[in-house]
Amino acid sequence: MTVDADRLVGEIEALAQISDTPYPSVTRVLFTGPDMRGRDWMVERCEAEGLDVRFDAVGNLFARWEGAEPELAAVATGSHTDAIPNAGRFDGVVGVLGGLEAIRSLKASGLTPRRSIELIVFTAEEPTRFGIGCVGSRIMSGQLDPGRAAGLTDADGVTLEEARLAAGYAGALSLVRPAVGHYRAFVELHIEQGPLLERDGVQIGVVTAIAAPATLRVDLTGPGGHAGAVLMVDRADPMVAAAELVSAVDEVARGSGGPDTVATCGLVDVFPGAVNSIPREVRLSIDVRDTDGARRDRVVDAIRAKGRDAATRRGVGHRDELLNADPPATCAPEIVAQIEAVCTEQGVVAQRMISRAYHDSLFMAQICPTGMIFIPCRGGVSHRPDEFASPEDIARGAAVLAGTLAKLAA
Amino acid sequence: MTVDADRLVGEIEALAQISDTPYPSVTRVLFTGPDMRGRDWMVERCEAEGLDVRFDAVGNLFARWEGAEPELAAVATGSHTDAIPNAGRFDGVVGVLGGLEAIRSLKASGLTPRRSIELIVFTAEEPTRFGIGCVGSRIMSGQLDPGRAAGLTDADGVTLEEARLAAGYAGALSLVRPAVGHYRAFVELHIEQGPLLERDGVQIGVVTAIAAPATLRVDLTGPGGHAGAVLMVDRADPMVAAAELVSAVDEVARGSGGPDTVATCGLVDVFPGAVNSIPREVRLSIDVRDTDGARRDRVVDAIRAKGRDAATRRGVGHRDELLNADPPATCAPEIVAQIEAVCTEQGVVAQRMISRAYHDSLFMAQICPTGMIFIPCRGGVSHRPDEFASPEDIARGAAVLAGTLAKLAA
Repeated sequence: MTVDADRLVGEIEALAQISDTPYPSVTRVLFTGPDMRGRDWMVERCEAEGLDVRFDAVGNLFARWEGAEPELAAVATGSHTDAIPNAGRFDGVVGVLGGLEAIRSLKASGLTPRRSIELIVFTAEEPTRFGIGCVGSRIMSGQLDPGRAAGLTDADGVTLEEARLAAGYAGALSLVRPAVGHYRAFVELHIEQGPLLERDGVQIGVVTAIAAPATLRVDLTGPGGHAGAVLMVDRADPMVAAAELVSAVDEVARGSGGPDTVATCGLVDVFPGAVNSIPREVRLSIDVRDTDGARRDRVVDAIRAKGRDAATRRGVGHRDELLNADPPATCAPEIVAQIEAVCTEQGVVAQRMISRAYHDSLFMAQICPTGMIFIPCRGGVSHRPDEFASPEDIARGAAVLAGTLAKLAA
Repeated sequence: MTVDADRLVGEIEALAQISDTPYPSVTRVLFTGPDMRGRDWMVERCEAEGLDVRFDAVGNLFARWEGAEPELAAVATGSHTDAIPNAGRFDGVVGVLGGLEAIRSLKASGLTPRRSIELIVFTAEEPTRFGIGCVGSRIMSGQLDPGRAAGLTDADGVTLEEARLAAGYAGALSLVRPAVGHYRAFVELHIEQGPLLERDGVQIGVVTAIAAPATLRVDLTGPGGHAGAVLMVDRADPMVAAAELVSAVDEVARGSGGPDTVATCGLVDVFPGAVNSIPREVRLSIDVRDTDGARRDRVVDAIRAKGRDAATRRGVGHRDELLNADPPATCAPEIVAQIEAVCTEQGVVAQRMISRAYHDSLFMAQICPTGMIFIPCRGGVSHRPDEFASPEDIARGAAVLAGTLAKLAA
């Protein structure tokens, strides 16, 4: 069972060219040109390997290698190819192309798996367009109601329902959820997106749990006006309230009582956004995560209260919406053990760890035993053009994945 | 001397249709399609009145009514037609179309002015595209060096030099500055953009001084990273530093010691701007104004210090640039007296006031005796789609302007 590192890295580099921003920056936002061209490119590659390709109603791609006993629950792997604006070329892609390469290496080894093996490319793991991440796996897991999913709107007011139909994905969203027992297991290969493996000189991270994410959207509104003409005493400036809230987000996360709480305000939209206008509307998107679901919820509640307080103090309108607040996931102990066994067989240095970033595995864990294989990424850097994983680490991850899939599908 | 209110309001409504946003919202950013079409539309109207139209190298439009003694210094009026995103239809436009209507009414009255009268439509009074306002009048006044003007860049990295050549304005920027003594006087008609005239039941405001504006741009930078993966203790988040600075801007302005100090952060650009990415770059544009130039400078200095402090405390990179810090302007007492005399003749209730917003008059005052005529605007609202001035107030303002131009050109 050998993984062709050159071919795998060559494909990662090729997919990176399909982007709205120049290499090495990658921008592939859901259902935009690069996302659609990336999907076409994946279909070609999967079909070239003789895999049976289909899309579901939300655009999740399934490439299936039929096993000797196709009626048995399948073993799945996969990740995503969408990328936030100005991201790197490895996040998600390593799991998708590493999964394809793992299947190729298993085929080349002459294996005939008893169970079918499916490669899944999930729709919109990144929350860029509709404000919540893991749209595809979230619907698959039943954690996102198809009706609510259909009505999600992007910044231009386009609904997910309109967008997925325009992209060519027909059928009922209610059919996205797979039949109970369809999957025997799901294993996702991914870059760590943190510094620990590199720092500790470890080759493979075996994920035992995934931190619980929540996303809060806060809208603050005021009367606006001319920046020169309205005196300070007459102002109700939503940007000043927003600033207080951003400070509070940082403070509340740091004071949560646990080192694993993180909270970030990565998106600040100011309307009308002119140097000589007092803002009329400010929208903040706030990301909160914790390995402890209850503590995460307390932090979210505290941030919401701080937002209301700031709005009251500044006399501005306030509305907030909790877009998602997902439970943490625990990886299946049997799959953790399988991955560790494969690492031992392959002479790879592995270490258990938690995933602070969330992944489609967070939702797949709701419907089948799930595991994750992490490879190091340079400096822990992710979501940036200089995100980097070495060819050796990528190939090693794909080989561990191949070994794990072989055991699970046997 | 009668002003045709219906024609004037009809033209204001017609120009409002030339916009990137739907009526009554107006968006005409420098050298974009609507700005260029608005210029063409103005040229047609000016030529229909027999005015001699020319553009200078930065796109200032001059429509001249030759006087009986054309070698004498001219009397000028005018304002701007560019509009910030989602603005209203009266700011600037009342001065331009009111100026044209004033000239029409003087022609219709059979007047032959001794001095020539020029209507000027200034380029980019609004700072939207290149970060500083009054680009046209600023260069005319010598307050903006042609070389520095040429090198100003917009958000896409396009220079003003490239933009004005692409828009079709050729010739040397150094020729924009008019000859010394070219203008005898400049009078600008404008909506108040504040609530005082309406509140006090006054029909015309006679401006005696214009508050001194300054614009500060602050760039804060950090390493960014994944919003889930980077623990709080490892963060250097430029958005958190930016939030502290926005709070400080409000606090410093309120604590300046004078009620006339205003400071606003109307523009916040966050890069990459994704809910699950820690920001890497945040750019704030901060607008500071005061009737007292020295106090304005102290406030700017205090804000700059607060920015440096916040950056140091948060471990983020910091760079700031004072894009402009203009002196306040004093209107010429003789022109103030002329406007008041016309108001008395026309039976109009007038009151002296200062302008907190700046206008092209701030710069024209550097090269010739200057005055401003304010009309009320509903609720003091400006830079918004619901900005409104009544037909009666607009016509009254144009009539007072016509009377003043007649006296100054006599």
